[in-house]
Amino acid sequence: MMPHLLQPASARVTREDCVAADAANPLATFRDRFALPENTIYLDGNSLGARPKGSAERAAAVVEQEWGEGLIRSWNTAGWFDLPRTLGDKIARLIGSGENECVVTDTTTLNLFKALASALRIQQQERPGRRVILTERDNFPTDIYIAEGLADFLNSVGGDYEVRLIDEELTLEEALDDDVAVVALSHVNYRTGAMWDMAAVTASAHDAGALAIWDLAHSAGAVEVDLRGADADYAVGCTYKYLNGGPGAPAFIWVHERHQARFWQPLSGWWSHTSPFAMADAYAPANDIRRFMCGTQPVTSLAMVENGVDLALEADMATVRAVSLELTDLFIRLVRERCGDHPLTLITPEEHGRRGSHASFRHPEGYAVMSALIARGVIGDYREPEVLRFGVTPLYVGFADVYDAVEELRDVLDTRAWDAAEFTVRNAVT
Amino acid sequence: MMPHLLQPASARVTREDCVAADAANPLATFRDRFALPENTIYLDGNSLGARPKGSAERAAAVVEQEWGEGLIRSWNTAGWFDLPRTLGDKIARLIGSGENECVVTDTTTLNLFKALASALRIQQQERPGRRVILTERDNFPTDIYIAEGLADFLNSVGGDYEVRLIDEELTLEEALDDDVAVVALSHVNYRTGAMWDMAAVTASAHDAGALAIWDLAHSAGAVEVDLRGADADYAVGCTYKYLNGGPGAPAFIWVHERHQARFWQPLSGWWSHTSPFAMADAYAPANDIRRFMCGTQPVTSLAMVENGVDLALEADMATVRAVSLELTDLFIRLVRERCGDHPLTLITPEEHGRRGSHASFRHPEGYAVMSALIARGVIGDYREPEVLRFGVTPLYVGFADVYDAVEELRDVLDTRAWDAAEFTVRNAVT
Repeated sequence: MMPHLLQPASARVTREDCVAADAANPLATFRDRFALPENTIYLDGNSLGARPKGSAERAAAVVEQEWGEGLIRSWNTAGWFDLPRTLGDKIARLIGSGENECVVTDTTTLNLFKALASALRIQQQERPGRRVILTERDNFPTDIYIAEGLADFLNSVGGDYEVRLIDEELTLEEALDDDVAVVALSHVNYRTGAMWDMAAVTASAHDAGALAIWDLAHSAGAVEVDLRGADADYAVGCTYKYLNGGPGAPAFIWVHERHQARFWQPLSGWWSHTSPFAMADAYAPANDIRRFMCGTQPVTSLAMVENGVDLALEADMATVRAVSLELTDLFIRLVRERCGDHPLTLITPEEHGRRGSHASFRHPEGYAVMSALIARGVIGDYREPEVLRFGVTPLYVGFADVYDAVEELRDVLDTRAWDAAEFTVRNAVT
Repeated sequence: MMPHLLQPASARVTREDCVAADAANPLATFRDRFALPENTIYLDGNSLGARPKGSAERAAAVVEQEWGEGLIRSWNTAGWFDLPRTLGDKIARLIGSGENECVVTDTTTLNLFKALASALRIQQQERPGRRVILTERDNFPTDIYIAEGLADFLNSVGGDYEVRLIDEELTLEEALDDDVAVVALSHVNYRTGAMWDMAAVTASAHDAGALAIWDLAHSAGAVEVDLRGADADYAVGCTYKYLNGGPGAPAFIWVHERHQARFWQPLSGWWSHTSPFAMADAYAPANDIRRFMCGTQPVTSLAMVENGVDLALEADMATVRAVSLELTDLFIRLVRERCGDHPLTLITPEEHGRRGSHASFRHPEGYAVMSALIARGVIGDYREPEVLRFGVTPLYVGFADVYDAVEELRDVLDTRAWDAAEFTVRNAVT
């Protein structure tokens, strides 16, 4: 357990306390590995991670040398063909897995489709009649939509699948009955930052005869994840948030070895074939994690994933997590101390074991407040309804940043700065 | 109709004739817009197109300014969010469509899954009981695999779908019976370069009560395509071959307006939602081509698509096609004139109306021959079984290039150069 970095000299935290904590922060040196604009405090790494400086060189090398000079040969000579697996093996080390269980490919949504389809096929064989995909109403919408799309598709030819939503009126325990085939949850909620206990929920799912799929979009690179320890069945996740892989960079899918070779997943493209270059006219899937690939991947975007992942591996997730919790603690405390007169409602759990790496507050004029903050260079983001979301990413956000951000928030609220602000950012992609 | 550029002074084509044709070539100026390595004749643009010079600047701008400086704001300020549609509208002009029918997103394989799923749902409603996806054994394998994956998935819950393959023993006419729901063909065959008559086949499909899906991977940017004129239902295609979008760049999907809003396609991610940022917990798809999007796209790879597409638009497809046919004609003629003693068998149709933009020959030692050619800087590629494939891409390949390439081929064959060659390229990705 790392000792606390922040040692307030007084009951009320001062900026000097924060500067001292930054000086003691073992992650402080990472900030110089990122390119960040001047006069900006970036608290939106949970939506789009900042740019590792090495990414520019990597992109230029892919475009100018590997593509421009190597041309088609680079599929082999530059390792393009193996990138999904080499990057997957690296990410595996951040999420509690060994090799050959993870590939970087396609999008989080598509990978969730593959995982759901595979899990339903297993259940159809082992526990026929189970027809419910269990998720939660507060999940990131695309996770619900893809479950609905899959159920609708199967039901169109005689399936009887249903998407069941945990919400304020239906707890996980109540929902987890004998009809449930698979539980598919986001480990850390995109809006509130609330975190499920992965091991406990997976155990409950298994006890109830269901399989467990975890969406790690707001977890990978942000909190400690132990998929093998939790005995999870499948996981999907994002590389462009806390893994700093670049805008829209390909996602990952992790499949426990025990499930990899059992059935086709229906997005059966040629990259999942056991011999993709034999050009056989019959599909014969690889008997390992390659089965969860599909088509040719966007190499330039894919290659840059490595820069971000390498930084996370170098930093060590236990240290990242410890600093992250101190930073969100500080954010919440400062908001209480300095913005207590304003109608801000914390919606993020305070308990460490239930919190991811961001802090969110509702405010009746949330969108206007965030717009005014962004205009001042404090970049968080806004999520319906009324939610101000502030992500702390310890590789490039420090204690004094949090202090300064809350001071700006206080000033924006005290002066109603949004009355004069230009609102240029709406609907930034999470 | 453009006059012929190649005017052989003698019965046997000389290099001087080719140089003269290059001088008269209205596309000759495009070559300088591409970055190509020295001492290379690149005849594999049908696998991975060459790099437009502007791509490097575009990638650097995306990575350094838009990502590094703009951060999350660039989804709006740099137009990232609209890229699938703005690029789709540009590609539409190359394939005989107006606006709002095409998006650039995901991979060709995944887009084919969406098109097939959508077409099957329409048929289920309009002509229930049709249960056959008709394609051909010689199609690019991933097209067959994804049809098999989809059929297998639906059949697992009570569907009765079947993938039927046109081959030497079953013609299109014979195969197109009352069971066929959808005909899904590659317009230009990846191996032989043979081209279907899109309008005629689509009309036959419609007459038989089937829908028509066209894979334009080897057509878009290579031959004239008129989807609206042919009354096609769906099309998918690739941006990293003749459109020079960069390695693994996202693919496109085109859906005739009449089919866009009828059913969900099952890969129903949040980018296909009518209000993606409302974060609603119920799926409500957009009633237009956006419905065929799914998740967040790889921006760096996606943005570079524009450089390649803009060059194709500037060149004009009628001119590209006319020069392409002259170049493949020349390639075939020179091989006959100069390599006639060797066991090369042309497998590409000679009739212009049935030929795409490459010429392929079988040779018993095809792989070794191609390896030796590549070692000499003439880059074509090899496809099982025994096939030497030479793509001509008029934006950066000229008549003298074809002449020199065939001379190298002749010398390699005459001297059995592969006995000493190092074979470094196997299995390059098509």
